[in-house]
Amino acid sequence: MKPFNKIAIIGTGLIGGSLALAIKKRKLCNRIIGVSRHIDSLEFAKRKKIIDIGSQDISIVRDADLIILACPPQAIMDLALKIKKVIKDSCIITDVASIKKGIVRRLEEIFPNYIGSHPLAGLEKRGIRNADAHLFKGSLCILTPTGKTLTRTREKAEVLWHSLGVRTMTMTPSEHDRILSFVSHLPHVAAFSLMDAIPAKFLDFAAGGLKDTTRIAVSDPQLWTEIILGNREEMLRSIAHFEKSLRGITLAIKHKDKKNLIAILKNAKRNRERMTRHCEPRSGEAI
Amino acid sequence: MKPFNKIAIIGTGLIGGSLALAIKKRKLCNRIIGVSRHIDSLEFAKRKKIIDIGSQDISIVRDADLIILACPPQAIMDLALKIKKVIKDSCIITDVASIKKGIVRRLEEIFPNYIGSHPLAGLEKRGIRNADAHLFKGSLCILTPTGKTLTRTREKAEVLWHSLGVRTMTMTPSEHDRILSFVSHLPHVAAFSLMDAIPAKFLDFAAGGLKDTTRIAVSDPQLWTEIILGNREEMLRSIAHFEKSLRGITLAIKHKDKKNLIAILKNAKRNRERMTRHCEPRSGEAI
Repeated sequence: MKPFNKIAIIGTGLIGGSLALAIKKRKLCNRIIGVSRHIDSLEFAKRKKIIDIGSQDISIVRDADLIILACPPQAIMDLALKIKKVIKDSCIITDVASIKKGIVRRLEEIFPNYIGSHPLAGLEKRGIRNADAHLFKGSLCILTPTGKTLTRTREKAEVLWHSLGVRTMTMTPSEHDRILSFVSHLPHVAAFSLMDAIPAKFLDFAAGGLKDTTRIAVSDPQLWTEIILGNREEMLRSIAHFEKSLRGITLAIKHKDKKNLIAILKNAKRNRERMTRHCEPRSGEAI
Repeated sequence: MKPFNKIAIIGTGLIGGSLALAIKKRKLCNRIIGVSRHIDSLEFAKRKKIIDIGSQDISIVRDADLIILACPPQAIMDLALKIKKVIKDSCIITDVASIKKGIVRRLEEIFPNYIGSHPLAGLEKRGIRNADAHLFKGSLCILTPTGKTLTRTREKAEVLWHSLGVRTMTMTPSEHDRILSFVSHLPHVAAFSLMDAIPAKFLDFAAGGLKDTTRIAVSDPQLWTEIILGNREEMLRSIAHFEKSLRGITLAIKHKDKKNLIAILKNAKRNRERMTRHCEPRSGEAI
């Protein structure tokens, strides 16, 4: 028996589309329902059989036994009450947003069977045309249950992710937002900031170092504004850490302090090498 | 006839070794001489026929008609007078350092036939074991002639780079250092600084975004300290630009100024997309 009957995916972009493809590949349900504001995205998803049925009307999710919210944070907040009105009481709800605290607080007020998910995979590219059944394979999904989360809800979410070849671990929404502010949101801020700071006339001289460092600066500004402002306090904290380190480098430069500069760079290199050992390289990951 | 008889490469690391391989491949000279402080690097280069002869003793370059200094900036400064004592008057000298102002000033005092070069290619990896005959192919080399540079010297340098499939353009050493401080040295500072700022315990959660953004943070701390301090004034300027942009993002976050934050991220994205159009992607570039 398949673990789910009908799975609804709200937001058929890169993440939603990749989830739909992976779910189909692993035969986790009988029917995949897609919801999107964008008619062309829905049409593409239906034509390519990424989803079985699709609509711009949220009421199409009424029979789902699992709903995955794969739309931007603000859209999740906006849609929650509308979804609540049409679904069965037993329907499991999760989301895949990059921020958790505000979303979990709101969604667990509304849904008795909600749990937050954040699969640490993604791409700077957008849209269902870039969807990839293997986007999540081998990656880690952080689940953020709280005291209110029912065991059944958590188990169902684990079935979903494990069936897709994704490891799971749990932490509180606050822990999630603190960690992600450093390992994902701060690098995005740094990359955006670099590309904002470099005079346009110099860009012809860019080579691989700058290109890699700023690859994620082509990420969607609207989505990243929602993520950054949605994780506001942690962002202010992680940016302050970054500025402090940058200030240390600047002072060493100002004072021609070779010894101290080497020490900072060596510490950075050590951390970066530690990261490489811990994380298997995968193409396509860009949380 | 080959354009050169004997070419000496001082510093048989990644760059020197890759140059030697490319020069051999294009048959630009009859004999390649390698000089390195590191006996194992020399032995490897000889064994793999990357160089024809090699020594730790600089006097081996005495018959060269072209010398390429491919060692770190400080070593270039330290070796210049020793090289001057042994070479023929007609010998052409160039270097491939990432900073130009200080080096050009010093070397053109010493050598009548000197011109600065900076091929915009490289890797975060080090050492002759990573040398690659194709490292420079299709890339751009900035030449930094001054009022003192002889036409013959410049022409010979152009023959070298063009024969290796490398485009050249000229600018002043100061222009070079200003541009590179933004497009290469600043991204290195940002990557080092990120890896210095992120708490080590969070590194297990790093995915592709952070990895790409900080790939160059495994670059050699000693070399990069020399580059950063050797371009001190321009670095202070480019870091200040970066801090200003970062400050703009921070203020937008502080004031929950969605409109302004989106505007900054959009500008960054536009610049990054412009860069992609201008620069053909190449693996292995990491100036």
